[in-house]
Amino acid sequence: MPAMKWWGWGHEGMEFSCEDKPALGPFIADKIGVDVRVRRSAPLRFDELEIAEPNLPAELRADLEESTGARFVSTDPLDRVVHGRGKSLRDLIRQRRGELPRLPDVVVRPGSEDEVAAILQAALAADAVLIPFGGGSSISGSLQAEDDESRPVISVDLERLDQVLEIDPESRLARVQAGVFGPRLEERLAALGHTFGHFPDSFPHSTLGGWIATRSSGMQSDRYGDIADMVKGLRVVTPAGTLVTRPVPAASNGPSVRQMVLGSEGRLGIITEATVHVRRIPQRRTILGYLFPTFADGLAAMRDLADTDYSVSVTRVSDAHETQFSFAMRVNPTLLDKVQSAALKTYVHRRLGFDVDSMCLSFIGYEGSDRHVSAQRRAVGRLVKRHGGLCVGAGPGVLYDQKKFDIPYIRDFLLDRGAAGDVSETATTWSNLMPLYDAVRAQANRAFDQLGVQGYFMCHLSHSYHAGACLYFTFAFKATSDTAMLGEYEVVKSAIQQAFVDNGATLSHHHAVGTEHAQWLLEDISAPGVAMLDALFEGFDPGRHMNPGKIVGAPAPVPSADPGPGG
Amino acid sequence: MPAMKWWGWGHEGMEFSCEDKPALGPFIADKIGVDVRVRRSAPLRFDELEIAEPNLPAELRADLEESTGARFVSTDPLDRVVHGRGKSLRDLIRQRRGELPRLPDVVVRPGSEDEVAAILQAALAADAVLIPFGGGSSISGSLQAEDDESRPVISVDLERLDQVLEIDPESRLARVQAGVFGPRLEERLAALGHTFGHFPDSFPHSTLGGWIATRSSGMQSDRYGDIADMVKGLRVVTPAGTLVTRPVPAASNGPSVRQMVLGSEGRLGIITEATVHVRRIPQRRTILGYLFPTFADGLAAMRDLADTDYSVSVTRVSDAHETQFSFAMRVNPTLLDKVQSAALKTYVHRRLGFDVDSMCLSFIGYEGSDRHVSAQRRAVGRLVKRHGGLCVGAGPGVLYDQKKFDIPYIRDFLLDRGAAGDVSETATTWSNLMPLYDAVRAQANRAFDQLGVQGYFMCHLSHSYHAGACLYFTFAFKATSDTAMLGEYEVVKSAIQQAFVDNGATLSHHHAVGTEHAQWLLEDISAPGVAMLDALFEGFDPGRHMNPGKIVGAPAPVPSADPGPGG
Repeated sequence: MPAMKWWGWGHEGMEFSCEDKPALGPFIADKIGVDVRVRRSAPLRFDELEIAEPNLPAELRADLEESTGARFVSTDPLDRVVHGRGKSLRDLIRQRRGELPRLPDVVVRPGSEDEVAAILQAALAADAVLIPFGGGSSISGSLQAEDDESRPVISVDLERLDQVLEIDPESRLARVQAGVFGPRLEERLAALGHTFGHFPDSFPHSTLGGWIATRSSGMQSDRYGDIADMVKGLRVVTPAGTLVTRPVPAASNGPSVRQMVLGSEGRLGIITEATVHVRRIPQRRTILGYLFPTFADGLAAMRDLADTDYSVSVTRVSDAHETQFSFAMRVNPTLLDKVQSAALKTYVHRRLGFDVDSMCLSFIGYEGSDRHVSAQRRAVGRLVKRHGGLCVGAGPGVLYDQKKFDIPYIRDFLLDRGAAGDVSETATTWSNLMPLYDAVRAQANRAFDQLGVQGYFMCHLSHSYHAGACLYFTFAFKATSDTAMLGEYEVVKSAIQQAFVDNGATLSHHHAVGTEHAQWLLEDISAPGVAMLDALFEGFDPGRHMNPGKIVGAPAPVPSADPGPGG
Repeated sequence: MPAMKWWGWGHEGMEFSCEDKPALGPFIADKIGVDVRVRRSAPLRFDELEIAEPNLPAELRADLEESTGARFVSTDPLDRVVHGRGKSLRDLIRQRRGELPRLPDVVVRPGSEDEVAAILQAALAADAVLIPFGGGSSISGSLQAEDDESRPVISVDLERLDQVLEIDPESRLARVQAGVFGPRLEERLAALGHTFGHFPDSFPHSTLGGWIATRSSGMQSDRYGDIADMVKGLRVVTPAGTLVTRPVPAASNGPSVRQMVLGSEGRLGIITEATVHVRRIPQRRTILGYLFPTFADGLAAMRDLADTDYSVSVTRVSDAHETQFSFAMRVNPTLLDKVQSAALKTYVHRRLGFDVDSMCLSFIGYEGSDRHVSAQRRAVGRLVKRHGGLCVGAGPGVLYDQKKFDIPYIRDFLLDRGAAGDVSETATTWSNLMPLYDAVRAQANRAFDQLGVQGYFMCHLSHSYHAGACLYFTFAFKATSDTAMLGEYEVVKSAIQQAFVDNGATLSHHHAVGTEHAQWLLEDISAPGVAMLDALFEGFDPGRHMNPGKIVGAPAPVPSADPGPGG
């Protein structure tokens, strides 16, 4: 496998390209005033970085080497830089500039739970800090040591704990090590006729342990559940010993310890293993595209769909802006594509009365037996029709399914061109979705205006539940300068996040708190909620050895030193 | 509404009777050697109780009276006795004997969240202890002050907080006060065309707040979810202020504070309000009875049913012992009933080859549109048939549905006759259900043998999940003497609970920890799990004002002073 980029998303050699998407360049030029042909900026070269020497006392190094063997204890500069932070846009901007964080002093790669426990004991003995590392794809700042950390910092990379240990087909459970990456997990389960069914956008670059530590959701969570539903038994190496929760389907044994580990971002310990739901690979799996006249129509259809007994696997509705972006992302349309598309536009406009500028693309996924899928398609088709929607077949769904894991690379592509692009997502009740959407859009546009930048803003609904859904926002703008970019980004991102908590939504549906979102936690869960988390973390890890400063207890965020608007 | 019994389950004037169940007396005589016609024992009269004077400093009384008004501050002896503990079998035995616990010094009945907050402030100022009280039906010892508590103890009865405050039909959510009892909640929602759908056996005698504080499940949880799934937003008055969690469908905002309140048994605060899932009242609702040749066949059918996309509302399979008990519970069978029953037995024996002694009664519930219910019945019928099962129509289901809330009264009926009857329930994975069942049965029988008593032991599966189910055990035996009963009960109950944790199951699926099950918590969730709960409770409530000693932190259980086996 190629190495992880130290300066960007994913693996070396992979990058986003406009060349096979003829409509995208003009779209980007039109929407945010960026000429994609002009590369304005590049990351520093690795040899230009100033990398501090590691602070690794000899005794601690010896203990670590005894824990895992010397070859799995690394102070290699690239290793340390890669493990120094995640992949938030703030991280990418700073890495490209060579503004490195407080790097870990050492990266260790344990090969067993016992080795993790030995590392933890060594860290406690040396008064060191442990930061667990899965895929390194955190976009919430969960992986970065505190700036002023004076103790040794150990990044514990779990990549060697990648085995499916056992499968219990009768209980539909698998015992899996936490360091396994998404593709490898699916590959191993597939060999046994099963699937886990968890497909976050970070799927190729994230691990089971990371999904648990951040309360992840995947594309098919409508059917398979969020990670919090899918994970039953847990094994976690903690300062108090190895936590073991039983893989029972439900329990009334006090506040759920399992649910405390979910979303704990390494603050309670290092997750080594989980017993998780698996399902037999379905006979058939398909994602169909639909068009709705407006975003509100699409949301209403999803709301009604969530009140039925149909069990769809994917629900997704893009707003008109994201729909237009999707159309612009089409790869090398053939003439036939173009005709179909033109014909479709004519059809929906003339026959259905759609305003083609406000129509919204939607995906609904189906899984199961041929018979089940067919019956569900028919039933959902009727429901969609009642909301003015139209099925446009499997083509868009196939495209979406193939390309979804490539999208995060677009942030680096835009950074090379002087533009910032990022995401924020949340969840709220069905009745609050449109008011929230309007409020967030207003705040984002206000932020663009305040900065005097041309910004683009788009959104989709995903993950339908009984009482509400997730709204996922994407935004991009051309920075006034590379220097100003980070400050300008903070203005837009903060406006969106603030609009979430000001309008009854949560700070994140599946991207975690880390340090990026910590400033909104108090408004989200109220002061006693923060006090409960504090009590848990401080009481369980009074020495602050376990990834301190994440979720709660971080110092107030330091505004970017970049000149912000008017600054 | 009639007053709650201070000495037994439910309301004065309600009691279990054998008179309308001609087969039950002989059944009980045969199985545990008790002649139901002979009443051997009775509770003391209330005026025979020795009730300690309340320890209520004048200043605290004044503060409480200012909080709620004097008429809602009670030191009435009956009030204090009723609020002194719950309804575990241990509680019932001791109440009947007049062995009162450390009674609350005062019972207060706040009429608003502000009044709850004022009570809490008064308690903190006076260094008093607060114990929230909903329906008082706890069977896990969650309501009883610690024996050696020297501070004033305040029972906070939430019965006046019984309003449905708001309904959001679009989001299918209702904002409800925590003190509402089951029947009143359903009545108020029904007037708005909705149902909550949560029907634990304690339904008439328990409240929304109690369900949340204990992580309750209801009869229809297969469809509606456990209370942990159904409760979204929470308002909890805590020592750190009022905790408010947002009613979002899912969130990635750190370890779930909502899930910390679920099952917290008053240790974090007093739940005043919740925003909960509601559903429109279904067009049709039916529960069908089925017979399976063996318990294993029934379990296998439920296991396979949980792997389908059918959405049934109830799954339940009794073992052969419980099936025989159910048949003995038939109310005044008509001649026709008898013929049908005899004919049925002949049919299942001759045609299907069932051994009538090992056949098992099962219920499966259906809800929704006529069309949905019909389609599901057919599909489930085919699945049941593959496991050798036979549909026996709606009759048994109707009976079960009507009678299920009366069953808990049977414990008092048996106590009057010198016999102990109680329940223990757990959950485990599908593959572990039969091994667990066998292990628990072996341990219960060993306990009966050890005591030299004739015991009966029965079980049903309820609550099917993706990866497992709940097993619910009921046992009864005739004590060697009234004095020996409590010690003998502890031997049997402990044997069953120990078998749960020794065989991969949890200490409780929906009955909570309290003090009754606290001794198995460490084995269930491991030492670091207990340490996490300790950190949370001690850090959040360092003064131990909030129902101290429940779940964790209780002193080691004191064995009953009763002469146990050989003692």
